[in-house]
Amino acid sequence: MPNKPPPKTGIARSDAQSIHVREMNLVEELIGKVTFTEMMLLHFYGRMPTRAEARTLDVVLVTLMEHGITPSSIATRLIYHSAPDSLQSAVAAGLLGVGSTYIGTMERCAIYLDEILKGAERGIERARSIAEMHFRERTPVHGFGHPFHKPDDPRTQKMIDVALEEGVSGRHIEALRILSHEVDEVYGRHITINATGASAALLGEISIPLKIMRGVAVVSRSAGLVGHILEESGTPSAPHIWEAVNQAIPYQRFE
Amino acid sequence: MPNKPPPKTGIARSDAQSIHVREMNLVEELIGKVTFTEMMLLHFYGRMPTRAEARTLDVVLVTLMEHGITPSSIATRLIYHSAPDSLQSAVAAGLLGVGSTYIGTMERCAIYLDEILKGAERGIERARSIAEMHFRERTPVHGFGHPFHKPDDPRTQKMIDVALEEGVSGRHIEALRILSHEVDEVYGRHITINATGASAALLGEISIPLKIMRGVAVVSRSAGLVGHILEESGTPSAPHIWEAVNQAIPYQRFE
Amino acid sequence: MPNKPPPKTGIARSDAQSIHVREMNLVEELIGKVTFTEMMLLHFYGRMPTRAEARTLDVVLVTLMEHGITPSSIATRLIYHSAPDSLQSAVAAGLLGVGSTYIGTMERCAIYLDEILKGAERGIERARSIAEMHFRERTPVHGFGHPFHKPDDPRTQKMIDVALEEGVSGRHIEALRILSHEVDEVYGRHITINATGASAALLGEISIPLKIMRGVAVVSRSAGLVGHILEESGTPSAPHIWEAVNQAIPYQRFE
Amino acid sequence: MPNKPPPKTGIARSDAQSIHVREMNLVEELIGKVTFTEMMLLHFYGRMPTRAEARTLDVVLVTLMEHGITPSSIATRLIYHSAPDSLQSAVAAGLLGVGSTYIGTMERCAIYLDEILKGAERGIERARSIAEMHFRERTPVHGFGHPFHKPDDPRTQKMIDVALEEGVSGRHIEALRILSHEVDEVYGRHITINATGASAALLGEISIPLKIMRGVAVVSRSAGLVGHILEESGTPSAPHIWEAVNQAIPYQRFE
Repeated sequence: MPNKPPPKTGIARSDAQSIHVREMNLVEELIGKVTFTEMMLLHFYGRMPTRAEARTLDVVLVTLMEHGITPSSIATRLIYHSAPDSLQSAVAAGLLGVGSTYIGTMERCAIYLDEILKGAERGIERARSIAEMHFRERTPVHGFGHPFHKPDDPRTQKMIDVALEEGVSGRHIEALRILSHEVDEVYGRHITINATGASAALLGEISIPLKIMRGVAVVSRSAGLVGHILEESGTPSAPHIWEAVNQAIPYQRFE
Repeated sequence: MPNKPPPKTGIARSDAQSIHVREMNLVEELIGKVTFTEMMLLHFYGRMPTRAEARTLDVVLVTLMEHGITPSSIATRLIYHSAPDSLQSAVAAGLLGVGSTYIGTMERCAIYLDEILKGAERGIERARSIAEMHFRERTPVHGFGHPFHKPDDPRTQKMIDVALEEGVSGRHIEALRILSHEVDEVYGRHITINATGASAALLGEISIPLKIMRGVAVVSRSAGLVGHILEESGTPSAPHIWEAVNQAIPYQRFE
Repeated sequence: MPNKPPPKTGIARSDAQSIHVREMNLVEELIGKVTFTEMMLLHFYGRMPTRAEARTLDVVLVTLMEHGITPSSIATRLIYHSAPDSLQSAVAAGLLGVGSTYIGTMERCAIYLDEILKGAERGIERARSIAEMHFRERTPVHGFGHPFHKPDDPRTQKMIDVALEEGVSGRHIEALRILSHEVDEVYGRHITINATGASAALLGEISIPLKIMRGVAVVSRSAGLVGHILEESGTPSAPHIWEAVNQAIPYQRFE
Repeated sequence: MPNKPPPKTGIARSDAQSIHVREMNLVEELIGKVTFTEMMLLHFYGRMPTRAEARTLDVVLVTLMEHGITPSSIATRLIYHSAPDSLQSAVAAGLLGVGSTYIGTMERCAIYLDEILKGAERGIERARSIAEMHFRERTPVHGFGHPFHKPDDPRTQKMIDVALEEGVSGRHIEALRILSHEVDEVYGRHITINATGASAALLGEISIPLKIMRGVAVVSRSAGLVGHILEESGTPSAPHIWEAVNQAIPYQRFE
């Protein structure tokens, strides 16, 4: 239990008359004036976001919210079935799947982009080494490739277009394009930039720190998981999921 | 493992060219065109929300996002300290606190409003019995009262005003006012309608089913908890929390 | 934030030389001298358990640990696949399924037994009303019935026999038998006492408070879930689970 | 959704008459015959453990169960307060803290021991480089050091003694001693082997795979957290925790 720099919080304060979040008056300045997305950015930035920032975050939040039947949504449905009086548990169980396997690739792609941007005129060179390293090690380039969406992920271009139209600087998007160009060269074929890669670039454009980038996906997926619970509450699938998994994983004597 | 009605999902479908969520084309119709809040309502309703619906949901999401240092945000900070590589765990731990003690009161207030609305011309009578029952049993009327915000919670009137200005029907808000009038009569003094009570009315206005009402709070708080993680990553408070709790809960020989 | 009775803890204390848990010296009196199960009971009771108490708890812990492919173990496998660097998340996700649907029946059966025991000579009468109420309302009697194990759950008699051999008083077991007799009479056929019902009686015998009865199942299942993770780490089933669930829940246009 | 090797499970199977876990008959061979700890090892090994294996695991489980007020137990208490009807959520929240910061050191110490053991006669040399690397980088040697327990952690010697008395081979314990000797040499003073380091050696002795080593701590802590819930249900500390944290983390205008 080390006791180093004095702790403090600058998030919220309230008294009998007023509530402030990040020094904005909740009732006078926020309720009815800002969207959820703007409020979320106010929380992160400590200042009101610009229109470009909010619209760009909306692009990412809208894109990541829903992917149908996934490990996360299956977990949420099963836990809702097992503890229907505790909706928050079902959402939490699904969110625990927003981890390194899927969403972790967003952070790792963001690290590439930071690398490329730090390189200034040597950015292309750095992009080249990233692509070559993965080619050599036969590991996937994070943010690239998709099992179904070929040759291109339909979301990527749209996400980038909207952000640019809204007026973000375009530096991270440019870094992603540089990387994409080098990846295609090194691999000798076109590999799509997927929605996770595009998300990394857009969140970079609006200065979301790498440390909480995964949190944007967590927030977005939480809404989708509540939607799955709503469907599950009307048309329960959990017993069928259970049965299907039982069929899919046969028992075999342990050696 | 019962196997009753055939399961199905109507949430999302995709092929190589397109991704649909609730029958809307994600790329053509949603990205860059809708906010997070509209997307969330599309998910719940299976149709695009009206402006009044989206703005009313934003009011609730903005109001509930942040309350500073609370059991949820303390849990999130402690778990982030213990597993900093697993941001989703820290958010999940905090969300597990969006339970019956605090947010459960929203659902229970919504049940009152449904009761009152079902009663048609007998609504006032029903509101009276709800108030009397709690007065008799000395239990709190869910959605009413606040330890600091007296005589009135500053958020409540604003939330209601915005929703009415946006053009919701006002039925649930009217039921809440009826209940408030009866509560004041029965208790012989004014008891504030708190933000949870107002949220119950607003979510009723936009037809959020009781079953997932708690989910709206879960989504909203998830964004706030990510904000706490961001602050914690810069100014760690967890060691101080630990130390303070150690001081606050002295060891005493077990009897 | 009410501030009522002064808080305290009697669980553990330590200084540079020694660590005490429940006033027992960890190094001198516990390590190498007690089993996990005895340590757990020391924690709950604040005193060393008897041999009968520890052996009876072992019966319940051993019985509940593993049920193969269940909602909990499926959730654990999916979350482990999604966040393999965070084993604790995968266990936590599965444990969130130790809720009202399955394990909640243990608590509710324990409430019946308490009811019957409180009734003294009127216990049979009370057992009768419990059985009749469920028969009338066509709801299951908690702790009774099993989809596969008919006419009798093979675990039940064994669990009871071991506890009695070890020398528990037998009061809760007797209450369970009274209830079973009345259930069979009221339903006009034999309905098995399942392992959850037997667990409720055994935990009652060793004075595990109702409030944490579910916690015994949580502890036991946590070990089973770690076993599933071990198997999953060698023979990944998660991609197959995902695929099987996709097949089992077809997409159907949302109405 | 890749679909590679055919999945299977060898954990449990049941029919109307019998239930088998890891090919052992639950009723005939396990209930009343094995402890929780033996059952857990049967689950992991796929065979009955020896007495030495079970007793050694008990040493670790008993040692790790309880540390009083910690980030995990504080989180559990706060979530129990917020969702008292969902005990499993409170335990899960606390277990999410069994992460890289504290328990992760056990795995990393186990990696050192594996390194040293793989080195055969060059083990001392490898131990030396591990110690030197940490000395050079001013990072802690995992499994070594303790803020209070100086010069020696009272648990360590006892844990090792019991395991050796029970008859484990002693290879991992020997590797830990080699590492300890090199650490003391390189740092020029005695640094204690802490209980986490000793746990790594003992779990290595009984062949618990590195991949699930953290799971042993998860299981052990789950029992401790249920004990905290029991205490909390009688003497609620959560409101005091909240208050104390509010005092400890003052609000300061966000810059």
